[in-house]
Amino acid sequence: MVSAGVVGGSGYTGIELLRLLSGHPEVRVDVVTSRENAGRPVAEVIGELRGVTDLRFSEPSGEALQRCDVVFFATPNGTAMEMAPSLVEAGVRVIDIGADFRLRDADEFERWYEMPHRCPELLEQAVYGLPEMYRGRIREASVVGNPGCYPTCALLGFLPLVERGLVATDSLIASVVSGLTGAGRGAKTANLFAEVNDNFVAYGTPQHRHHPEMRAALDELAGGGTSIVFLPHRAPMIRGMHASLYARRSAGEQDLQAIFEARYADEPFVDVLPSGSHPETRSVRGSNACRLAVYELEAEGTIVVLSVIDNLTKGAAGQAVQNMNIMLGVDETVGLSSAGLVP
Amino acid sequence: MVSAGVVGGSGYTGIELLRLLSGHPEVRVDVVTSRENAGRPVAEVIGELRGVTDLRFSEPSGEALQRCDVVFFATPNGTAMEMAPSLVEAGVRVIDIGADFRLRDADEFERWYEMPHRCPELLEQAVYGLPEMYRGRIREASVVGNPGCYPTCALLGFLPLVERGLVATDSLIASVVSGLTGAGRGAKTANLFAEVNDNFVAYGTPQHRHHPEMRAALDELAGGGTSIVFLPHRAPMIRGMHASLYARRSAGEQDLQAIFEARYADEPFVDVLPSGSHPETRSVRGSNACRLAVYELEAEGTIVVLSVIDNLTKGAAGQAVQNMNIMLGVDETVGLSSAGLVP
Amino acid sequence: MVSAGVVGGSGYTGIELLRLLSGHPEVRVDVVTSRENAGRPVAEVIGELRGVTDLRFSEPSGEALQRCDVVFFATPNGTAMEMAPSLVEAGVRVIDIGADFRLRDADEFERWYEMPHRCPELLEQAVYGLPEMYRGRIREASVVGNPGCYPTCALLGFLPLVERGLVATDSLIASVVSGLTGAGRGAKTANLFAEVNDNFVAYGTPQHRHHPEMRAALDELAGGGTSIVFLPHRAPMIRGMHASLYARRSAGEQDLQAIFEARYADEPFVDVLPSGSHPETRSVRGSNACRLAVYELEAEGTIVVLSVIDNLTKGAAGQAVQNMNIMLGVDETVGLSSAGLVP
Amino acid sequence: MVSAGVVGGSGYTGIELLRLLSGHPEVRVDVVTSRENAGRPVAEVIGELRGVTDLRFSEPSGEALQRCDVVFFATPNGTAMEMAPSLVEAGVRVIDIGADFRLRDADEFERWYEMPHRCPELLEQAVYGLPEMYRGRIREASVVGNPGCYPTCALLGFLPLVERGLVATDSLIASVVSGLTGAGRGAKTANLFAEVNDNFVAYGTPQHRHHPEMRAALDELAGGGTSIVFLPHRAPMIRGMHASLYARRSAGEQDLQAIFEARYADEPFVDVLPSGSHPETRSVRGSNACRLAVYELEAEGTIVVLSVIDNLTKGAAGQAVQNMNIMLGVDETVGLSSAGLVP
Repeated sequence: MVSAGVVGGSGYTGIELLRLLSGHPEVRVDVVTSRENAGRPVAEVIGELRGVTDLRFSEPSGEALQRCDVVFFATPNGTAMEMAPSLVEAGVRVIDIGADFRLRDADEFERWYEMPHRCPELLEQAVYGLPEMYRGRIREASVVGNPGCYPTCALLGFLPLVERGLVATDSLIASVVSGLTGAGRGAKTANLFAEVNDNFVAYGTPQHRHHPEMRAALDELAGGGTSIVFLPHRAPMIRGMHASLYARRSAGEQDLQAIFEARYADEPFVDVLPSGSHPETRSVRGSNACRLAVYELEAEGTIVVLSVIDNLTKGAAGQAVQNMNIMLGVDETVGLSSAGLVP
Repeated sequence: MVSAGVVGGSGYTGIELLRLLSGHPEVRVDVVTSRENAGRPVAEVIGELRGVTDLRFSEPSGEALQRCDVVFFATPNGTAMEMAPSLVEAGVRVIDIGADFRLRDADEFERWYEMPHRCPELLEQAVYGLPEMYRGRIREASVVGNPGCYPTCALLGFLPLVERGLVATDSLIASVVSGLTGAGRGAKTANLFAEVNDNFVAYGTPQHRHHPEMRAALDELAGGGTSIVFLPHRAPMIRGMHASLYARRSAGEQDLQAIFEARYADEPFVDVLPSGSHPETRSVRGSNACRLAVYELEAEGTIVVLSVIDNLTKGAAGQAVQNMNIMLGVDETVGLSSAGLVP
Repeated sequence: MVSAGVVGGSGYTGIELLRLLSGHPEVRVDVVTSRENAGRPVAEVIGELRGVTDLRFSEPSGEALQRCDVVFFATPNGTAMEMAPSLVEAGVRVIDIGADFRLRDADEFERWYEMPHRCPELLEQAVYGLPEMYRGRIREASVVGNPGCYPTCALLGFLPLVERGLVATDSLIASVVSGLTGAGRGAKTANLFAEVNDNFVAYGTPQHRHHPEMRAALDELAGGGTSIVFLPHRAPMIRGMHASLYARRSAGEQDLQAIFEARYADEPFVDVLPSGSHPETRSVRGSNACRLAVYELEAEGTIVVLSVIDNLTKGAAGQAVQNMNIMLGVDETVGLSSAGLVP
Repeated sequence: MVSAGVVGGSGYTGIELLRLLSGHPEVRVDVVTSRENAGRPVAEVIGELRGVTDLRFSEPSGEALQRCDVVFFATPNGTAMEMAPSLVEAGVRVIDIGADFRLRDADEFERWYEMPHRCPELLEQAVYGLPEMYRGRIREASVVGNPGCYPTCALLGFLPLVERGLVATDSLIASVVSGLTGAGRGAKTANLFAEVNDNFVAYGTPQHRHHPEMRAALDELAGGGTSIVFLPHRAPMIRGMHASLYARRSAGEQDLQAIFEARYADEPFVDVLPSGSHPETRSVRGSNACRLAVYELEAEGTIVVLSVIDNLTKGAAGQAVQNMNIMLGVDETVGLSSAGLVP
């Protein structure tokens, strides 16, 4: 049995992680921390886990966490980089669902997150946890920087096109829509039900923090020089993320449907829908799947890819469990195989 | 032209009040205060009022407010009772949409609101602003305590029954459901979209602050001795309130439908639906109407009344404007005659 | 491995049943029928089951179903009673999630469902599938009539009170709210998103079909003579049911909290919350749990019980699987132990 | 007083039109037709109009409609073109909110709507009812083809850019999101609350019927040769439309904010938000406004415009009333000046 720790267990990502790990047959969560709720039973704070777990929240403590085999951080940006070095030194493998280990460059981190990075050397070794691009490196990683939800959703859609040079990589557009759990559990007027329901809005223009990690991965796929317009939106949904991706066709005629199907044939969590489909976000509610559809608009010289994930699952906690499975060498789908909750 | 002031213009009730007054042909809002937004144009803070008003928020100031003919308080409990005495002395008529002037008794106020009342003598003169019960007194009032949304919705349903002694008044039950604007615009995790959507819950048991004002009005109708179980619930809606009212039949057979229709025949904002109807909250969205249906379940000896209002309109700002119209002697429906927004 | 058949697999209850059975380690679904979708892969019709099942929908056929060990009916009322007799004769055990086997009396069935019952003798043997009342009989049953969602939610709340004679059983009130999946998947204007969202309404007054089965169970608990006012409501939610139950206290002082906890101590799916709690419907989303809270309002002489279930799970498909587990003699929680999906 | 007729008054657009006209001081609706509801009072069918109108629905009749000054069609495609010729001959002015008079070419109409056009000569004279482009022609028109909601929302955003040649018109992208009222009131499983809520999906790819009218207007602005990718999406909202518009910068540096503000300075219903804003759909709920924001992403060489309307108001019935006001020579804002309903 693998011993796991969860730092920051009372936000949406932490709750989702506890839900998934509670059904994982090879992992036992031994430590779950929450400053705010330290000492209280997890099931008292998160009512739906009554009967599922007997754990109590504890104060974050290096000592207890160092006894774990793997530690997840579901914390605000800036926390994981404080605690990761000593954990890694103790042989613990670290998966940060926050942003501390997503960018390769400490200066770029500082520019976007407005704080200096506390362990630049660990940052250099960290692996970007998108299994469909970096499975091999993840297997060996000490520290995995779990991708943001937006980059996960957009990159899986662009990947087959950019990898094979089928599109102009200087004019990519990602118009992406997220449910409200993506905005976290903090108390903000802007995220109140009465503000959000029956309402749709874009935000984060012209600059969103998920932009640099998206471009970095695209650059790696294309050999550099990519440019992408990324526009996030907020829809009145609890969970779910939908990307509408636009790219200019740059190569001659090819069967895009076949290319997508071949690229993802062995990927357990990427599902290329039949030609002519429109993936619904609800079809992946609570599941780790990404569902894709690809269209070529010949008259407009444009390729459109539609991509959906659950922002809390494949976009956060589920992908973290997938990365853990890869790191531990167990089957990648263990604990992640249940069907989505529909309707 | 009547000059009006609004204290606390940036909460949901204040915004609704500004929306209604912006279309009122006989009133001009001259002062609108908001500590938080003082100095900023109203239309900058409340985007949907762009092009509708040129007002700026100001700091609350006795001097400016004393030049108004009527002042509305759309403030947290405890604010109106601080400012009302000097306004009344200056001849300004006051309508408090908060709770400071709803109860008749300063001790009871203190028990429920956990603060001493600052002007008990004004409290005694204040009139409970439910026009369907107290229209005559409202006309002459210096201070009107606008009823809570729950009491408005429940009382209009029970009124014809209790007034005529048709039900046992010691076992009334009001099971009432509210949309989220009733919970205010403050930043609370419990009211986040991701907490509220696709979720239904009761709250405020066993004691809710709207209980004593409800019972006081029922006592007045029945001549004392009433007892009511009041259970509030929260549904994932922006606006709307629905009361399911249960009472034991105590008198012989009578035509309840005819009694309700006769009681409200001259009331411009109470609409008794045809027999067999189920009022929908959306049918009064943004309107000042209360819609009612009455059922007799003979086998169970029980009368059921269904009552719907918009909690922000008839349940708060609309009823306040209705009270203002009565106080000013203009037609009660002026500024309140537009149809609800459906769908 | 138990072989199961599902008749009517493309409605909301059928989909939920397939979702639950897809994770059940001791059952294999061999037949799933849908007239409308016969011949098509299940995963093509129900997108979220892509990768979960390889089954195809078939025409309902007695022959194929008779080879199953257990057959579920997730069909409109009137279907199960046509096919059940030959299945029972062939030794197949039948669980009807519809209404054909809920009432004991063929005349009462005809009165409420406006069609003659096709197998009154089987109706007499059928067991009402509420495990918390009838576990022993369910174990031996050939035919189980799975309770309606409203009766399940209300009965579990009233049960400890009525069983012990703590309340007046001639004046029970059940004010119950359901999400929209309870209304089925048929195309009706009244259930369109644009009609339902931001809207709340009661319906089914004065007579709802779930009334007689509720009263029959209460009569059995109380030894007859019960009377209950049951008022269903519709809230803008996908899943979830919340009952607010009111009863007049009839016995002297007792510790209601302790009585509830003791009554349900051994029930795997009934969770009595700590004193002072308000159960949320989302806390049971996708789970088979029923969560309860009990309050005594002493001044009003009234006991209030709050009860929540997921109408598709404990209210339909989950309870059907629970009944199957009981009938097969496997642990009652197998396939039903996953945590709810929150948020 | 102008006499108006409404053909097809019981769909969402018809209801919105009746709501708006009920508050219009210079118009009296004399005829409102609905085959399905003929003979019934409007307020019985549309509960929220109780107390607002005494009209009854009638069968569509040429005779009654010919006595009107102006007739609106809020009907399925194909109806208006049957009745318009005789109305025009009788001197009645016609505003079709459907699609019969939006395209200029009968062949193109037939290709997209799969029916022959019944009055091609009237089609040629009809004016596309986007006041911000064609106000002068609308004033004189006998027949106005009211634009679709998607084209209205997208064109108002692209207009200042295309008109002045600031962008490459061969690679425009319109990623647009609509609420559910855009899908009409017909009973379809796909539009049920339980299918739509907490769900987001694109649709209508690769070809949507609003594409040709959008391109035709863009061609007219640009002098031909435009190409646009238009992707519609459906979000779980009742009302509201949000367009995210992307275009490649083609001209040198200019102040886009100033250009937008100048272009729309005299437009009563187009509101250019301050630099850095993100328009919310709710800010125009029930109002005839279109709100815009413009961004230049210099590094990506791309201009992004955000545009919101209420699909039922500026996107349908409100724009129809605006067109009527222009045709009648009354102030364009009469009957359309009320603030949106927020929250």
